[in-house]
Amino acid sequence: MISKAEIKRIRALSAKKQREEAGLFVVEGEKMVAEALASSLEVVSVYRTSDIGEEAMRQISSLSSPSPALAVVRIPEAPSESEIDSIIASRPLALALDSVRDPGNLGTIIRIADWFGIDAVFASEDTVELYNPKTVQATMGAIFRKEIIYCNLPSVLERFTAAGMPVYGTFLDGEDIYGVELQQSGLVVMGSESFGIGAECASRVTHRLLIPPYPRGSVTSESLNVAVATAITCALFRRG
Amino acid sequence: MISKAEIKRIRALSAKKQREEAGLFVVEGEKMVAEALASSLEVVSVYRTSDIGEEAMRQISSLSSPSPALAVVRIPEAPSESEIDSIIASRPLALALDSVRDPGNLGTIIRIADWFGIDAVFASEDTVELYNPKTVQATMGAIFRKEIIYCNLPSVLERFTAAGMPVYGTFLDGEDIYGVELQQSGLVVMGSESFGIGAECASRVTHRLLIPPYPRGSVTSESLNVAVATAITCALFRRG
Repeated sequence: MISKAEIKRIRALSAKKQREEAGLFVVEGEKMVAEALASSLEVVSVYRTSDIGEEAMRQISSLSSPSPALAVVRIPEAPSESEIDSIIASRPLALALDSVRDPGNLGTIIRIADWFGIDAVFASEDTVELYNPKTVQATMGAIFRKEIIYCNLPSVLERFTAAGMPVYGTFLDGEDIYGVELQQSGLVVMGSESFGIGAECASRVTHRLLIPPYPRGSVTSESLNVAVATAITCALFRRG
Repeated sequence: MISKAEIKRIRALSAKKQREEAGLFVVEGEKMVAEALASSLEVVSVYRTSDIGEEAMRQISSLSSPSPALAVVRIPEAPSESEIDSIIASRPLALALDSVRDPGNLGTIIRIADWFGIDAVFASEDTVELYNPKTVQATMGAIFRKEIIYCNLPSVLERFTAAGMPVYGTFLDGEDIYGVELQQSGLVVMGSESFGIGAECASRVTHRLLIPPYPRGSVTSESLNVAVATAITCALFRRG
């Protein structure tokens, strides 16, 4: 059973403001719920169609075809400055997202980071919110395995450089990525869907890369989607 | 000016059945409309907010934020069997999509094919329809530059093999793609979001590839999204 008040509280979590006030977010799907339960995050409550009925599940779900399970999960605390320091000190291969605005792209990028063993994902403060239902679902569970750190991004770029690590970014005038020896410690900056890497971050990139079109130098009117560009870049870093 | 009947006719094109009956589809956005006009396709009519007003544009648009321009375009004729023969005889590097179901994925894959100079894209009959508005918009104009051929996919795989070209596919038990010498003539089969490459096509793949997770052999619960896997595969084929 589920009360009307409870249905209302869960539905409210589809809005960012309500998620932030309650410190809670929603995951849907048997697999996602199982991964939430197996993760270090606190699962506040789990609802199954077999317990609450299809009508109630339709009311609390944000999917067009509701799944049989939904969980409410507590948003974890953001890492402290000293935790960020330790991450950088561990000399990771990390991603930095500069103003990525599409929830599906952010979720897909987190899934890619998980597949390619990227140790951390930094995001500018104006990157789309992590706990948006579309982002959560697009991660396919990777949200429970990756730490996403919202931060002052230009300062993180500087800290990587100060620690002697390269800061990579993709630009239309960059060097052909296939020919560059890519280090396994460093930061890879990906830009927004519309504007690429912003000026503040661009000036702090130490290694400018290009994913060239084929044939080389052919003029295509459009760049690659940011999640697609992230996937190709990560695959080339991890080609081993 | 635009009549009520015209508004109704354009709105109807958001449904597959109506598109097929009318032989027309819709593109939206200044850039998309400009590319349609510059392409070999027949543009039946163009509507601009500056001519018809914001209210009418809202009514004919399928976007949540309507753009200033929309065009109605005639669906081109499907290629004949002999045209398919000529495409295969040209020894192309081509993609084959087996039951891709998500419109956004299909559009993104066409955009990727355009970037990487993939000469043709074959699709199984049960692949999502090309002229779905979400697919059209996700191509970012690449739909005007690429030929997408719906066909009996297993027979196309056989025709590539008969012509002496390799048929590649990605599988969890495939060979590490980074170590394989990838031919520049051949067919690359990508599977559906949920089930990968179906049995009928799988048995006709001659070269089984794997995009390995990092670290190699690590167990991740989820595969890569099909558009992401396509991007990585195409990038590796075209690394030159």
